[in-house]
Amino acid sequence: MPLTANDPTRTSWLDIPTHTDFPMQNIPFGVFLTRDDIITIGTRIGDYAIDLGALHQLGYFEGIQLTDDIFLQDSLNDFISDGKKTWRLVRNRISDIFLKDNSKLRDNEEHRKQVLFTLDEIEMQLPVDIGDYTDFYASKEHATNVGSLFRDPENALLPNWLRIPIGYHGRSSSIIPSGTPIRRPIGQTKPGDDGTPGFGPSKLLDFELEMAFITTDTNDLGKRVSVKEAEDYIFGLVLFNDWSARDIQAWEYVPLGPFLGKSFASTISPWIVTLDALESFRTEGPAQEPTPLPYLQQSKKNNFDIHLEAAIQPENGEETVVANSNFKYMYWSMAQQLAHHTVNGCNVRSGDMMGSGTISGPTKDSYGSMLELTWRGQNPLKLNDGSERKFIEDGDTVIMRAHCTRNGLRIGFGECSGKILPAIPF
Amino acid sequence: MPLTANDPTRTSWLDIPTHTDFPMQNIPFGVFLTRDDIITIGTRIGDYAIDLGALHQLGYFEGIQLTDDIFLQDSLNDFISDGKKTWRLVRNRISDIFLKDNSKLRDNEEHRKQVLFTLDEIEMQLPVDIGDYTDFYASKEHATNVGSLFRDPENALLPNWLRIPIGYHGRSSSIIPSGTPIRRPIGQTKPGDDGTPGFGPSKLLDFELEMAFITTDTNDLGKRVSVKEAEDYIFGLVLFNDWSARDIQAWEYVPLGPFLGKSFASTISPWIVTLDALESFRTEGPAQEPTPLPYLQQSKKNNFDIHLEAAIQPENGEETVVANSNFKYMYWSMAQQLAHHTVNGCNVRSGDMMGSGTISGPTKDSYGSMLELTWRGQNPLKLNDGSERKFIEDGDTVIMRAHCTRNGLRIGFGECSGKILPAIPF
Repeated sequence: MPLTANDPTRTSWLDIPTHTDFPMQNIPFGVFLTRDDIITIGTRIGDYAIDLGALHQLGYFEGIQLTDDIFLQDSLNDFISDGKKTWRLVRNRISDIFLKDNSKLRDNEEHRKQVLFTLDEIEMQLPVDIGDYTDFYASKEHATNVGSLFRDPENALLPNWLRIPIGYHGRSSSIIPSGTPIRRPIGQTKPGDDGTPGFGPSKLLDFELEMAFITTDTNDLGKRVSVKEAEDYIFGLVLFNDWSARDIQAWEYVPLGPFLGKSFASTISPWIVTLDALESFRTEGPAQEPTPLPYLQQSKKNNFDIHLEAAIQPENGEETVVANSNFKYMYWSMAQQLAHHTVNGCNVRSGDMMGSGTISGPTKDSYGSMLELTWRGQNPLKLNDGSERKFIEDGDTVIMRAHCTRNGLRIGFGECSGKILPAIPF
Repeated sequence: MPLTANDPTRTSWLDIPTHTDFPMQNIPFGVFLTRDDIITIGTRIGDYAIDLGALHQLGYFEGIQLTDDIFLQDSLNDFISDGKKTWRLVRNRISDIFLKDNSKLRDNEEHRKQVLFTLDEIEMQLPVDIGDYTDFYASKEHATNVGSLFRDPENALLPNWLRIPIGYHGRSSSIIPSGTPIRRPIGQTKPGDDGTPGFGPSKLLDFELEMAFITTDTNDLGKRVSVKEAEDYIFGLVLFNDWSARDIQAWEYVPLGPFLGKSFASTISPWIVTLDALESFRTEGPAQEPTPLPYLQQSKKNNFDIHLEAAIQPENGEETVVANSNFKYMYWSMAQQLAHHTVNGCNVRSGDMMGSGTISGPTKDSYGSMLELTWRGQNPLKLNDGSERKFIEDGDTVIMRAHCTRNGLRIGFGECSGKILPAIPF
């Protein structure tokens, strides 16, 4: 199945801003509420949201095997279950519909009215019903930094880290779409001198700059997928802010891992950018030494060159970019993660989400969390408005962005943002 | 709302075996496939499965506010969302329908044919669509034993354990109903002398004797529930076998907790016994010293006296009961667990499941896992057929049972069983 939609020479009859994250070659998938308060599956080109439910009802997907209501749903799960071939057919067809010389929709005002929305007319929703969410810990720099800060700088990287794509199960219920405000969490923290644990609003509220991939139905219970097959089961990626309360986390996480320090909220960008759209941004990952066990070995470029940034915007203030990182720093690729996740027979379903873990690069300005950027508050960051930050304060909005560029083509993810509201008093 | 259905003097026109787990006073909820291959929500009295979808269509729930299709679903989630008052009305009504002197269904053969099934005519399914599954670690004896075996006998209980109901997120997708066979998982284990991790079928496959509770919609994101309110949001309990591959777990679990050592399968008993049905089996939990923080303090009996047992049945052999424990040993009550889970604002939804963690008692025969019963294989168990077990072998079926008794009344959970099949070769 050719990736026609990726052709960089394709232009549209739609008016598309230059430098948009959403050119004709992106065609991501999402779920939104329309101006008529109807929920639908859609895509985005430039600054238009496009109602795929309406397009389908009007016959624009003729010839592709799709159930009548496949886009009239509040999640992409069923469409994702249709599999890679269908995703490609639909994405190519969308590209065709908006191609400069295709007059069918272009010259039908009645249809255009039903199909096209400006961004202020819609409200983005969570794109998938996330059954299980797993978070990996796949950046070597991040694992090393955290190991130094939480445990022992001399043995920062634990012995299993270079052998296993370390991951853990996260909380699905509290995953929210970009723009949803977040209450500062309350919880227990390490005891003071009298032995009684601290209790109250987190004082060390942090973001984690991550990406996450969304899977289709991958394997039945007891079966597994190989690294080679794994990408066939990955629908696409979103930006992901794995909000973390470091003081709650530090007290609770031994021996069973992070729990309430993470589960109060996790924010994703609402448009799923398909793996297909990212095809031309493949790159080598970091060298893997020691050589992974055979079931984790890979023979092609399974990393992706995606620039990532995180910014802090104080209440009523201008934003300051505080981190510049890249998805290519991931030591363990998505394909390795998915193969590892299923090696024990664990079944993976449509709509499951797997986070990368914080993506930190080699330089101090490429660290993906305040914990690392300020070295646990020792080196506060200066914001453009003159204020300083050790961690995230009430009223701050954290905004993440991601995009790839090559030969003038830019494929982006839009924003993943969330504002911190004060804790609800007890 | 009176718990009429709990009245121990109530008897039925149905023929109910003595010593059944499912007397008139139980009335659990489950989902099954009927002889006509229709999926429905049902209950069980004695050895009869009762189709609540059919009962509702025939008008037996008149006067109770229920949507027409509330029982014609493949999960209890929507019914559970209806809330405690509705659960009680329905359970009381079911009790009325089968009450000795109530002739309405008793004398209507046509209706009885549509409503009543023998157990060999049905196939039990997973009772809920489990959104998130959390596993706690709430037995002090178990945490102490595991701490001794995996870490340091001198400091077996970590400093946070007496302060926090320690828990972690588990994998929902691989939760299966009793009777589903399980493939021995494959995975990485600790490196040998050459530094290369081991890889292959788990050699230390274990069970964990647990119970789990199912919640209704508890709180919106950012809100919390108190210990006092918590039980209003608990629908009921099931038996739970949290299968564990100790060798995979030991190598992977630092620092983010158990992952593939658990996610290959977890088995639950198919009938959810309501918290209401267990009301008369309340008991004090263990004394909590030091006193928990205020948000975890409780003023009533929040533990339940439920006898638990685990048995091993070798292929073609007779079973041997290897563990006798009790749900009352839980140090942290379900109410404390749910209050803790939401204290940070994490939202809990209908159909979420929370496991107790392995329930071990004070004596060596009350330990809830092979790891503890054989002290990591040092003291193999002798089975009735003369064979020995350090851990679980291929062909073994692990069967768990649970029941409460008081004044001749027995409320039970049926069985939670699973057979281990050999690993699928690579």
